[in-house]
Amino acid sequence: MGSKTDDTLAAAADAKLAVTDKSVLSKEEQMALISRNLQEVMNPEILEKVLDEGRHIRIYWGTATTGRPHCGYFVPIMKISQLLAAGCHVVILLADIHGFLDNLKAPIELVEYRAQYYKWVIKAILEAVGVPTEKLEFVLGSSYQKSPEYIMDVYKLCSLCSEHDSRRAGSEVVKQTDNAPLSGLLYPLLQALDEEYLKVDCQLGGVDQRKIFVAAKEWLPKLGYKERAHLLNPMVPGLQGSKMSSSDPDSKIDLLDLPEVVARKIKKAEAAPKVTEGNGLIGFTEFVLLPAAELRGGKFTVLRERDGLEPLVYSDIAQLKADYENDVLTPQLLKPAISAALNELLVPINAAFQASKEWQEITLKAYPPEEKKKKIKKVKDKGTRYQGAPPAKVAAQEGKTEGAVDGSAADGAAEQ
Amino acid sequence: MGSKTDDTLAAAADAKLAVTDKSVLSKEEQMALISRNLQEVMNPEILEKVLDEGRHIRIYWGTATTGRPHCGYFVPIMKISQLLAAGCHVVILLADIHGFLDNLKAPIELVEYRAQYYKWVIKAILEAVGVPTEKLEFVLGSSYQKSPEYIMDVYKLCSLCSEHDSRRAGSEVVKQTDNAPLSGLLYPLLQALDEEYLKVDCQLGGVDQRKIFVAAKEWLPKLGYKERAHLLNPMVPGLQGSKMSSSDPDSKIDLLDLPEVVARKIKKAEAAPKVTEGNGLIGFTEFVLLPAAELRGGKFTVLRERDGLEPLVYSDIAQLKADYENDVLTPQLLKPAISAALNELLVPINAAFQASKEWQEITLKAYPPEEKKKKIKKVKDKGTRYQGAPPAKVAAQEGKTEGAVDGSAADGAAEQ
Repeated sequence: MGSKTDDTLAAAADAKLAVTDKSVLSKEEQMALISRNLQEVMNPEILEKVLDEGRHIRIYWGTATTGRPHCGYFVPIMKISQLLAAGCHVVILLADIHGFLDNLKAPIELVEYRAQYYKWVIKAILEAVGVPTEKLEFVLGSSYQKSPEYIMDVYKLCSLCSEHDSRRAGSEVVKQTDNAPLSGLLYPLLQALDEEYLKVDCQLGGVDQRKIFVAAKEWLPKLGYKERAHLLNPMVPGLQGSKMSSSDPDSKIDLLDLPEVVARKIKKAEAAPKVTEGNGLIGFTEFVLLPAAELRGGKFTVLRERDGLEPLVYSDIAQLKADYENDVLTPQLLKPAISAALNELLVPINAAFQASKEWQEITLKAYPPEEKKKKIKKVKDKGTRYQGAPPAKVAAQEGKTEGAVDGSAADGAAEQ
Repeated sequence: MGSKTDDTLAAAADAKLAVTDKSVLSKEEQMALISRNLQEVMNPEILEKVLDEGRHIRIYWGTATTGRPHCGYFVPIMKISQLLAAGCHVVILLADIHGFLDNLKAPIELVEYRAQYYKWVIKAILEAVGVPTEKLEFVLGSSYQKSPEYIMDVYKLCSLCSEHDSRRAGSEVVKQTDNAPLSGLLYPLLQALDEEYLKVDCQLGGVDQRKIFVAAKEWLPKLGYKERAHLLNPMVPGLQGSKMSSSDPDSKIDLLDLPEVVARKIKKAEAAPKVTEGNGLIGFTEFVLLPAAELRGGKFTVLRERDGLEPLVYSDIAQLKADYENDVLTPQLLKPAISAALNELLVPINAAFQASKEWQEITLKAYPPEEKKKKIKKVKDKGTRYQGAPPAKVAAQEGKTEGAVDGSAADGAAEQ
């Protein structure tokens, strides 16, 4: 992935998208846009075959409906934007049962409100980027994960899989101790079955899901189901740096934060000059702001008025990284540019929130203010499978997660 | 259990039963009959409370519907006879899903026929002993183990139980290797939930189930359900001795075997003179033939006509064991007595089979003769939880199982 040819094709596709209908994309352009920014595509031939058959590729991405989504969600959602732009049918699994199991003390109603909140917020992000959403579908996990057919398949798969295989599959996302809950061994199986029950051709997830995806390829055929393709998002460093703590109220940027709050939080973010590796600002720019600009036919712009210089304009992460490493693009220049570009995405989301009484009411029910004050601390290393609430293990070890560029998605869950 | 006082009370209860209605039993007589021949009763106070409330104790025993039941089934069924005689409401769980999972290659229809076969045969055994069966109830596992409520509780329990706890719970009945199927970790949880979903006060099982029972006592309250009492049957040595192999057609006594076949098989059984410990003939007499005789108001009789002596008549295993150890009761005397007593039980079962065209048809569908000829060898150490198809691990190690006095229940499954 990410080869020059692919990037050029995808950029060509983006340019077309900004002015024309996606249906004009060639198969190669579609594949390039689907693969863009990914670390790996497993079994691309499965996707090519779907396109050859003239069908729309059906892809699923799952997120457990737990903590309040923050800016970390832009990473998978931006990838989903590209998939929608490429003409794919995207199914977002709102894993409410997993959300419920993640915090059994929370009443089931709360989890259902949270699922609704997730739906509002994800749609608002996609609309902010301006991609067509008619091929976007939300499915509640509870709508099929309690069905007799599904559970018989769970039982069957439990008889066909060894403890060892399941443990290995979940080893990157589930805490590996003897005291870990049994659910950790069950989740990889459910995630494999979801591919069949959501009738998709492909699953999108963080690269930390790789072993689960490999296992799913092996397990589904044992039940007589076909194996699926898999899209793997890279792990992106946290936007504000790994040292931000969950006790710091500025450690996460909420999707409804106002522009001045965003600017303050970005200003406080860690960012070593000249170092791009592990740099949250660079990562967020690469995987969120540049793709967002491209989808809208624009570029990422860094103003240098104060220094009396022309703006730096980027459509390419390579050039941006080179400038940063040479200190042409300093953290002091980059931070306000990121704030501006991020606020361009957040302002319409906030406007949509302000315009919807329904969304506002759901928010109050899903994340009651009283509960926030209590600051109930949850066991952090519980490990749910979905990248929406990424495992603290990975976040803690690497200071980055696929679905949580600000490195605090797990903390988000902790503050429920 | 098995103290002199209890035995005397239970014998008194048996005597009453033979001539009168069970409702005349006192609470103490009921408890004595319930506890009779058991290795342990966990939380008898739960049962006493039910009796104090004037309710019938509701007890469940589960069996996976796999191989064709043989004489080993007399052990749990004789205990069930005593429970019915004591006025208990007995639920027999025909674990068809477990039967299906035990051999995924078998079509689901076959398993359903087997569940029907089990029902016919268990009823026939109980009728042969002459206990009232109006408080006997059969429940198919599939009737509730695929329900949304049950499966949500499975998911919840998986989040509340550690791998370690589940592994420990199943350690006596599930093979403990890393390559063991994941289902082995799931089964103890299901077995605990069954107590709640079958709305019982108590579960009956072999002593090999003890750790599962202990775990169930701990787990159910975590879900807000009450803990249950547990009745533990001892492990009984195989009727024909541990050295009988499954390749020997005489290694099991089928419940439909004719009298001369039974006599031949018993004649071939292992039985060291004077040794009662681990002696299958003594075990079968203690846990099947003596209780059956008592339930019918009779005694276990050993004829000695050939030696010109009076018959030996037993109502008490202690006296029988003493005579055997002193070689007054030789294997040569005991074997024909066992054949005669066993045939007294089998003849009415066979008569019921001959009288029922429906049962005969079910038998052909449940255990098709063609399949038997193929002699498909199944992996033996799969380990299902139910004592109806006891785990080969225990059977192999100890040459005895709770539900398989002839030590070959696992082989029975192997010959499906």
